[in-house]
Amino acid sequence: MQKEALYHIPGYKWAYAYDTETVRLRVRTKRGDVSRVVAQWGDKYDWDRFHDETALEIVTSDELFDYWEAAVSPFYRRMSYIFRLESEEETLYMTDRGIVEEFPEPSGSYYEFAYIHDVDLFKVPQWAKEAVFMQIMPERFANGDPSNDPEGTEDWGGVPTRENFFGGDLQGVIDHLDYLEDLGVNAIYFTPIFESPSNHKYDIVDYKKIDPHFGDTELLKKLIGACHDRGIRVVLDAVFNHCSTEFPAFKDVRENGEASVYQDWFHVRSFPVEVKDGIPSYDTFGFFEEMPKFNTAHPDVKNYLLEVAEYWIKEVGIDGWRLDVANEIDHAFWRDFRNVVKSINPEAYIIGEVWSDSLTWLTGDQFDSVMNYPFSDTVLSYFNGEMNSLDFSNKIGALLMRYPQQTNEVIFNLLCSHDTPRLLTRLGGDKRKMKLAVTFLMTFIGTPCLFYGDEIGLEGEGDPDCRQCMEWDPEKQDRDLHDFYRMVIRLRREHPALRSSRYRIHQACADTPCFVYERSEGNEQFLIWMNNSDEEQTLSLPDLAEGWKDAFSGEEVAGGEDGLSVTLEPFGFRILHREVQNA
Amino acid sequence: MQKEALYHIPGYKWAYAYDTETVRLRVRTKRGDVSRVVAQWGDKYDWDRFHDETALEIVTSDELFDYWEAAVSPFYRRMSYIFRLESEEETLYMTDRGIVEEFPEPSGSYYEFAYIHDVDLFKVPQWAKEAVFMQIMPERFANGDPSNDPEGTEDWGGVPTRENFFGGDLQGVIDHLDYLEDLGVNAIYFTPIFESPSNHKYDIVDYKKIDPHFGDTELLKKLIGACHDRGIRVVLDAVFNHCSTEFPAFKDVRENGEASVYQDWFHVRSFPVEVKDGIPSYDTFGFFEEMPKFNTAHPDVKNYLLEVAEYWIKEVGIDGWRLDVANEIDHAFWRDFRNVVKSINPEAYIIGEVWSDSLTWLTGDQFDSVMNYPFSDTVLSYFNGEMNSLDFSNKIGALLMRYPQQTNEVIFNLLCSHDTPRLLTRLGGDKRKMKLAVTFLMTFIGTPCLFYGDEIGLEGEGDPDCRQCMEWDPEKQDRDLHDFYRMVIRLRREHPALRSSRYRIHQACADTPCFVYERSEGNEQFLIWMNNSDEEQTLSLPDLAEGWKDAFSGEEVAGGEDGLSVTLEPFGFRILHREVQNA
Repeated sequence: MQKEALYHIPGYKWAYAYDTETVRLRVRTKRGDVSRVVAQWGDKYDWDRFHDETALEIVTSDELFDYWEAAVSPFYRRMSYIFRLESEEETLYMTDRGIVEEFPEPSGSYYEFAYIHDVDLFKVPQWAKEAVFMQIMPERFANGDPSNDPEGTEDWGGVPTRENFFGGDLQGVIDHLDYLEDLGVNAIYFTPIFESPSNHKYDIVDYKKIDPHFGDTELLKKLIGACHDRGIRVVLDAVFNHCSTEFPAFKDVRENGEASVYQDWFHVRSFPVEVKDGIPSYDTFGFFEEMPKFNTAHPDVKNYLLEVAEYWIKEVGIDGWRLDVANEIDHAFWRDFRNVVKSINPEAYIIGEVWSDSLTWLTGDQFDSVMNYPFSDTVLSYFNGEMNSLDFSNKIGALLMRYPQQTNEVIFNLLCSHDTPRLLTRLGGDKRKMKLAVTFLMTFIGTPCLFYGDEIGLEGEGDPDCRQCMEWDPEKQDRDLHDFYRMVIRLRREHPALRSSRYRIHQACADTPCFVYERSEGNEQFLIWMNNSDEEQTLSLPDLAEGWKDAFSGEEVAGGEDGLSVTLEPFGFRILHREVQNA
Repeated sequence: MQKEALYHIPGYKWAYAYDTETVRLRVRTKRGDVSRVVAQWGDKYDWDRFHDETALEIVTSDELFDYWEAAVSPFYRRMSYIFRLESEEETLYMTDRGIVEEFPEPSGSYYEFAYIHDVDLFKVPQWAKEAVFMQIMPERFANGDPSNDPEGTEDWGGVPTRENFFGGDLQGVIDHLDYLEDLGVNAIYFTPIFESPSNHKYDIVDYKKIDPHFGDTELLKKLIGACHDRGIRVVLDAVFNHCSTEFPAFKDVRENGEASVYQDWFHVRSFPVEVKDGIPSYDTFGFFEEMPKFNTAHPDVKNYLLEVAEYWIKEVGIDGWRLDVANEIDHAFWRDFRNVVKSINPEAYIIGEVWSDSLTWLTGDQFDSVMNYPFSDTVLSYFNGEMNSLDFSNKIGALLMRYPQQTNEVIFNLLCSHDTPRLLTRLGGDKRKMKLAVTFLMTFIGTPCLFYGDEIGLEGEGDPDCRQCMEWDPEKQDRDLHDFYRMVIRLRREHPALRSSRYRIHQACADTPCFVYERSEGNEQFLIWMNNSDEEQTLSLPDLAEGWKDAFSGEEVAGGEDGLSVTLEPFGFRILHREVQNA
């Protein structure tokens, strides 16, 4: 066995409570190196009476490693444990004091999960596990009330720039809830809607006021009420890292310098507040002088922002917050944020914008989820032909193993956003590839999110190009694509197996362009077959012959002597479904 | 390079702020496999203007791995980074998205340390870095006031049982502060002193009352005042996991069952409160029915205990808390505990009792330190001849790499306690081995702690044997051992280099019984030579010839052509010291 590959620590994603009865354990071994991993566990205060062993199973792999998991239910909420690793050549034991060759008697050398505390449990909202999100920029979705258009509003459908406006608003969203409901979307993430001079509104002037070009609090209430009536949840964008230079406290600092009572609300490195050589004398988002960074550790700032977080949940009943530039705000702030938000609405969904590894926020005391940009990049890269099927399965495996299962169940999987080129554009305009990518998104672990308009074929490069107006003229919409989205979203929403944590790969080779995986829960099973090449492919899987039907058409797919065989068109896919007994 | 051995995650002990200017980075590679590790880092918002690279150095190794570290000061408190790893055969890059062979342009694939926040900094008390602790059980240290002795108090010096009393008290400690000061101890950790029926007092009845057999609040105030006058700090034992069955709230539950307003103060699994088949119907410490476990998530319990934590700091000015059975209490409790304690006394020292890997408590938001039992076991095992010098250096290296540097600087290093056999007993009564172990303790990274009486040669097996009365008759004390302790404690306290984080091994082989290491800071250097065998050993180290003196005698130790040569008696040691220029 390769000892250097072995990894486990008694905490974080490697050992954590899933509920008050269950501890999940995870172990990493060199890929293909170990044939069996068993947890030997018990109660250290009376080992003889209370001990047991539990085999782990490989849940996924990446390029280098196999990852093993098991769920263990300790007798009295506490457990000491070691792992026994078996290969053909040897047996090793992983302990808190290192790897040993002889079975160590229960002692201080064991790992410990000292006690399962309900208050420390990482609880994520159940509804988020069942949600299909659409991300909407209200300025660009629909103009429901031309009377509130900003000065100089351009004609709907024009070319977006960083500065221009098209008049979209909350009434526009209300007007199209039928459309969302029909599409199958049951959750909306809105980019910021509070008063702000910009079209994107990530530089906020008043956190308690809806931007007048979008509507007002009453209208938002109406929107949310109408959404909730249809079973649609609403998440708003919390831009707490920075504000607008027109935000009153910052204006005061700019005007009064060191005499301002608000000077500690920001990170001012030197007075006066100015920009020299492109660098503001105060911390900002990036180096953008128009977005001064809050000092979120200042009690007044913290109270103000937490009150904002509370206000919109209480006042209009939002279902969660997406946290802009979340990784540049302190952990202490986010801990209090979670306490405030979850104490008002325990089912609130908290999604951090963090583009890189986010483990330090995903420990149950801060976020539920993060925007899964590494997922987008991996999926896009694969369907763009930049990696083979084995690499793809390895990268996806590595991403799954970044976090505990709670987060995986509600991680915010997206394929594009207001900050990236449009999905179709990222895939070179090839709608077949787009359908593969969306099929993967909609059949994978995590909470999927579309960007408004992807479903009718909008294209566009990065900001500002991707932020164009929604196309409402059916003649100009790609209705085939739309119907495909509708169909695959419906499939996801109807079948818990497609939202479950169980994901197994049946085929992912370096030298064939196909990818076949299984999704299951209870006695439901799905097999998803993808052909990521421009040539027809015929694939066979042994031992899976019985009882499959096409998930969309219901047509039976009979297996032969060699098992189940499926022919896939160029960049085509099939989703097969069956119910099994005693799964 | 062995890819499976490479490890880094952007957080916890692998990437953390050390102060508001500095991020410490740590990387793991297979031992001996990599010749150079360089961090390439910069500001993602303007990489071209703001980027740099910093070489890491190997700070320690264990059996399998080398550990590399560097301190980096980002331009604007934020950084993206990757690592370049060089060996003779190849160059690899470690990134947030995996290991790659080609240099990746600055992008989303970089690790991120998004922003250094003062409020998230892991701050440990400076005084703890300079402290030498003695752990004192007041019942067994000295009887300064026979008038408060419990009924049935036995003669001082009798055989300890789990139940008996010898009359020790706070006045006894006050009476012997000269002794402590002379020995060089500048901090005391007291086992519990609050009202409790037992001699160990880990089952508390009243958390706001000094046990009347020990004294009262006024006397504690006097004791702490006298300590502070001498520069001695005082840490008390916080037994917050469980209480006595005589604790009023538990009494109420026992008497009134489900009708008790206190029923949720505890984890009662079924009423009535009883013990069946050795298992109490309520959660306890271990399965001890006399120690019911608190429900520390209950707001009233939490408020009560946090008020206790606050009370003793405010009322009598204690300098910190040692947290009994700390790992069985919820993390949420400890976060609030830290906030409460540090807001009253930012220099309070918080030490958790956790015997196994404690990383999840050592992230800056909970404890400063833990009782380092794995350190004791490793040191004792080595000096007992159960492992060779290479194994010893590997185990010590692995322990250092468990935590970030802040914790290492104040980790509570002990060689025995009230919960283990006495040090001398653990070393088979061999005082030469004991001196080696104590020399290592006193010259190593972390906060050393003696158990009262070790320094005059007390022996004893585990509880209750180790908890015997302090011997005050000079005739019966081992004065040679005492003077040795005094000397080596003095040396540590006089030389910051012996308390620094810099530790380098010069000799640690599997086949020689010697161990030579360096401790340094600024222009001070120490070389500590140990012979862990019963035969005289002569050792030479090249390139270290100049300027050494014996740290105790001041005698010059001249090097020859082959470098520095030292002869060590059986189980002997030498500590050499020099000042170097431009270190």
